[in-house]
Amino acid sequence: MRVAHSADEIRRQLQSLRKSQSIAFVPTMGCLHDGHLSLIRKAKALADIVVVSIYVNPLQFGANEDLDKYPRTFEADAKLCAEAGVDFIFHPSTLYGKNGPAITLQAAASLCDCLCGASRPGHFDGVVTVVNILFNIVQPDIAVFGEKDWQQLTVIRRMVSDLHMPVEVVAAETIREKDGLAMSSRNRYLTADDRTAAIAISQALRSMQRLAASGESDIDTLKQEALTILANAGITPEYLDIRHPASLKNRRKLNSLRPARAFIAARVGTARLIDNMPLELTQ
Amino acid sequence: MRVAHSADEIRRQLQSLRKSQSIAFVPTMGCLHDGHLSLIRKAKALADIVVVSIYVNPLQFGANEDLDKYPRTFEADAKLCAEAGVDFIFHPSTLYGKNGPAITLQAAASLCDCLCGASRPGHFDGVVTVVNILFNIVQPDIAVFGEKDWQQLTVIRRMVSDLHMPVEVVAAETIREKDGLAMSSRNRYLTADDRTAAIAISQALRSMQRLAASGESDIDTLKQEALTILANAGITPEYLDIRHPASLKNRRKLNSLRPARAFIAARVGTARLIDNMPLELTQ
Repeated sequence: MRVAHSADEIRRQLQSLRKSQSIAFVPTMGCLHDGHLSLIRKAKALADIVVVSIYVNPLQFGANEDLDKYPRTFEADAKLCAEAGVDFIFHPSTLYGKNGPAITLQAAASLCDCLCGASRPGHFDGVVTVVNILFNIVQPDIAVFGEKDWQQLTVIRRMVSDLHMPVEVVAAETIREKDGLAMSSRNRYLTADDRTAAIAISQALRSMQRLAASGESDIDTLKQEALTILANAGITPEYLDIRHPASLKNRRKLNSLRPARAFIAARVGTARLIDNMPLELTQ
Repeated sequence: MRVAHSADEIRRQLQSLRKSQSIAFVPTMGCLHDGHLSLIRKAKALADIVVVSIYVNPLQFGANEDLDKYPRTFEADAKLCAEAGVDFIFHPSTLYGKNGPAITLQAAASLCDCLCGASRPGHFDGVVTVVNILFNIVQPDIAVFGEKDWQQLTVIRRMVSDLHMPVEVVAAETIREKDGLAMSSRNRYLTADDRTAAIAISQALRSMQRLAASGESDIDTLKQEALTILANAGITPEYLDIRHPASLKNRRKLNSLRPARAFIAARVGTARLIDNMPLELTQ
């Protein structure tokens, strides 16, 4: 496994390899856990060479967010990557000058003014700008993103399709603890009590899945069930939404012909957790 | 010469060629003239394969601008391309859905709130968005742009450097009529009288060049000279600016250590014409 610290370095390392081998790319902010390792496994299954980037992207943090205290654990991350068979780590100190890039990307309001974007203005613009830069540097054939960050996955898919980027975006299912909690770098902020309460998020999503599968199409009924489960664990969600998985438009009623996905964000103790699951109506 | 009408088609045509041959790209809005042909000659000199795109980009036209009446002369353009040795014309009918791309590019205000950008809000955002899309589709090694559209060249250079796009931007000098008028698709709107008056634009720029070369560093003196020449031809410029060629920041005084460039835009008859030249102070 090789580690590159600049755009020029990783490009040089990949230059001759890309002529005969396919490249899969897994962008991360480090602090790797089993969720990331599942992305890396998927990448290894789909391409000859796996590149993992570790870069805590300042552009996607708001002024009052946790950029400074976001965990940085490079030594442990590199060890996990080596064990997982990663070929290259791209670990730049920065990707642009001190004033930021003069050209940035912007996602349409319809994709950004809801879910996490509603409370994090500019967040997804920062995400697509830096993922665009990373794609341009690494020039992968395939890039793997987790479904846990569904809105991020959706915005990146739109970036690739609308800007005609020559890369295939592959989604990987959310990896969960045995009790259902979605893996996240932010889970480490949970106390023991928080950890117990946090289970309610995936339980609330699963209960909506079950209700939909049993034929319940009314959005308010589905949401009420989920809110009750969350309230019993002492959780008031920041949002609890049911939306179209690609356009992120609100669903008013489940419909067996049109897909829907349920989304929850909630602060549990000091950690802000998110999760989502597909809803399939069986009639 | 082959003509492709969709992103998939041009990608497919170039796919195997790009493994062993270099590709130079000349994006145009059609209505080709000798200025474009000089870009094509430069492209041919620098790469094995030349791709010319002909696409009138709606994103870079404002609501009150000349999108509908912008000249479309595909047959004549294709003939000129064939004669010039172009290998591929990319002539898409559109590059995105009817609502436009959901992800767009945005240039920093410092690059856009001056010169042509001041009177054309959103114009350069439209330019970089579509050039980004074209670069992603064609994936050229080299892209050639004319110096006549200096602000466009500057914004595209920043896009490539700041987003780390894997393409080299090459600038080509402005091609002029014998009397100095910069070639432009919009020159065809000039009446005979307009055509005579329009010469004053390049004359005003050249007079500033001569004054600077003779040691004049005062911006107001340089501008006054140019304004007089324009006024004598009945032209009141939309702008007459002297700026840093890369940052586009205003210059207060010429300095032999720091580069400067003079820019003029003016409406002559119904045509809006632009031109620019470098100023070099000799002391």
